[in-house]
Amino acid sequence: MRASEIRALFAVANRPEVVSLAGGMPFLDGLPLETISETMARLIATKGTSALQYGSGQGHEELRERILDVVRLEGIECHPDDVVVTTGSQQALDLVTRIFIDPGDVVVAEAPSYVGALGVFRSYQAEVVHVPLDEHGLVPEALETTLADLARTGRRVKLLYTVPNFHNPAGVTLSAERRPRVLEIARRYGVLVIEDNPYGLLGFDGQTLPALRSLDDDGVLYLGSFSKTFAPGLRVGWVIAPHAVREKLVLASESAILCPSNASQMAISSYLDTCDWKAQIKQFRELYRERRDAMIGALAEHLPAASWTVPDGGFYTWVRLPPGLDARSMLPRAVTARVAYVPGTAFYADGTGSDHVRLSFCYPTPDRIREGVRRLSGVVNSERELVEIFGTDSELDPDLTDVENPGPDLA
Amino acid sequence: MRASEIRALFAVANRPEVVSLAGGMPFLDGLPLETISETMARLIATKGTSALQYGSGQGHEELRERILDVVRLEGIECHPDDVVVTTGSQQALDLVTRIFIDPGDVVVAEAPSYVGALGVFRSYQAEVVHVPLDEHGLVPEALETTLADLARTGRRVKLLYTVPNFHNPAGVTLSAERRPRVLEIARRYGVLVIEDNPYGLLGFDGQTLPALRSLDDDGVLYLGSFSKTFAPGLRVGWVIAPHAVREKLVLASESAILCPSNASQMAISSYLDTCDWKAQIKQFRELYRERRDAMIGALAEHLPAASWTVPDGGFYTWVRLPPGLDARSMLPRAVTARVAYVPGTAFYADGTGSDHVRLSFCYPTPDRIREGVRRLSGVVNSERELVEIFGTDSELDPDLTDVENPGPDLA
Repeated sequence: MRASEIRALFAVANRPEVVSLAGGMPFLDGLPLETISETMARLIATKGTSALQYGSGQGHEELRERILDVVRLEGIECHPDDVVVTTGSQQALDLVTRIFIDPGDVVVAEAPSYVGALGVFRSYQAEVVHVPLDEHGLVPEALETTLADLARTGRRVKLLYTVPNFHNPAGVTLSAERRPRVLEIARRYGVLVIEDNPYGLLGFDGQTLPALRSLDDDGVLYLGSFSKTFAPGLRVGWVIAPHAVREKLVLASESAILCPSNASQMAISSYLDTCDWKAQIKQFRELYRERRDAMIGALAEHLPAASWTVPDGGFYTWVRLPPGLDARSMLPRAVTARVAYVPGTAFYADGTGSDHVRLSFCYPTPDRIREGVRRLSGVVNSERELVEIFGTDSELDPDLTDVENPGPDLA
Repeated sequence: MRASEIRALFAVANRPEVVSLAGGMPFLDGLPLETISETMARLIATKGTSALQYGSGQGHEELRERILDVVRLEGIECHPDDVVVTTGSQQALDLVTRIFIDPGDVVVAEAPSYVGALGVFRSYQAEVVHVPLDEHGLVPEALETTLADLARTGRRVKLLYTVPNFHNPAGVTLSAERRPRVLEIARRYGVLVIEDNPYGLLGFDGQTLPALRSLDDDGVLYLGSFSKTFAPGLRVGWVIAPHAVREKLVLASESAILCPSNASQMAISSYLDTCDWKAQIKQFRELYRERRDAMIGALAEHLPAASWTVPDGGFYTWVRLPPGLDARSMLPRAVTARVAYVPGTAFYADGTGSDHVRLSFCYPTPDRIREGVRRLSGVVNSERELVEIFGTDSELDPDLTDVENPGPDLA
């Protein structure tokens, strides 16, 4: 099972001696904790009976108004009524899928695609059909072909799931030129677009592309989050949805959790009111750019036989391993060498992707990133020697690959 | 739709001039807000990078350990690994239902039963079969008969949903004598018991009955919550579940929300560490007992033609209206008279219950409770006069009841 694969990996990768290039945790040491602490204290002391009380199923109105300030940076103009606050944008994914998907329905998603979204689609028995992306994001021509094929075979395609900015895991961004084309194709085939955009404000050059939602009010469900630009531990995300969908989302969310946390929502409103949150995002951008540079530099130095994407923002680069290597079977040896990554297979619904790994540069320091890539290069080089001597895994007797023992270091 | 009925009701009942005997909001003014404020401030200042970060899907280990101290008060001995933290116990209900229920499966539940649970069961297309309760809670003989009938007709009964203590909405408590009998019957029919217990520590005489889970480790999923004993705004509940179920719950919760809020969980751990939470619960008990007394006294004084349960704890009394009255059709007139309640129909999956109302005494002050019951008695008396003159609604032409207009006061 994929979830247990990732779980076992994280359990080991969390040890301090392992350089984890696996997780997607933001680096929070730069947050103004003293100021946030004072803000929280004042919130509880002055509005505690509201912050600690049940709230609205749709979300706290003040926060929904503040969210408009955030999404306006990406060109979205909407009304607080259009916003539904969720327990992280993962809950938004879950609710949208719950509402739209019947077993057997098709969700079209990029190849590769966010592992957490694939898990949700699977849990509602959707079939995921992947569409290729390239360095400019989802390929419109491939989307058109895929939707045409699906229509021809009578499949019911409900949703297009896309991470347009600083893609997880691929690190690429859908170009401005392609955005209206993707929307036009989706509209033509009657497919609703889920725009999952946790990283949109984390562009390293400070440039922010217009959200798909800013180009299409009716055909796009926009998913946003404070997890990457502020603090995931508060679990606050949101959906911007057309009227009819929004009402269903509120009912589904009330059934799932009654209401999102007033304390978390009011804490974020207070943070947005009292702290210079735009300056904080700018600081995150610079921090992550430095780490991106450390990773790309180390890849060029230590892993010239691989290839990778160079992200303009976000947390991830997507690395194609040298020919013949299998990211999944290599993982136990990598962790033994004290470096962790996520095998590409996690990001495909169809079992492919074993020639890729996702490397994240968000959490470790630049020095640790360089050390991690150096360790990874050692594993890759040993692996290549084995491949030269014995051939690839797929040429081995399959029974032999089953007895692979990760050894006590992984226990 | 029931949800929209409740929604419309709450929108109006929240106006300050209306005495709401409808909601289940705890009364938080008694909380030590200054101390909680300082606790939160220290938490963020000293452990902010953990509290604001992603956490474990199963929940924060420290909190799971503290939860053992809470449930030990009800006789439950278990291990922190047995606990899964959820976004309020509503999420626990959602996850359990998601895991166990296929469309058409039967859930057996008390008549009446918690409206939020019925909503979840409905959303997963379970069929709810009600079993009567009396002043000692769920009636074992009726449970046995119902399960035997269902078995005979080949129905697949997956879950027994019960609120054993200070029932919502009925206000009654399952007697100690009946508890092992209910468990034995459920076990014999292979039905898993969901013990939903948000109010268990709010017994007015300070006596706490042993949880069903304390009598049966394998056949009971115990749902707990900090919403009634501390603060619903943090959205923290939990499930105690047998091993195999717990692993499924964690996976389902990760798919739904990734992880519960570290900030909320650590805030509760800090509260439990630094405040005398047992004294706080004792204070809540005394507060709610005084309000229960105010309500029961006012019912005796103003509504002698009705009958009601006298709860030993919790938030609610369950009132049978005088013959011929319909709680649902009376509601707009009650709100016009500036008092709100929840019609009994909300607590049945089968459309019955219109002869009952749920009155909650948790939030309004004793004076407001008395005023609310006085206003309600005025509405009930007018209604009875109408019934005497024109007969009950059911004797009217059904078309006439459809044109009922609640008037601009409800807009």
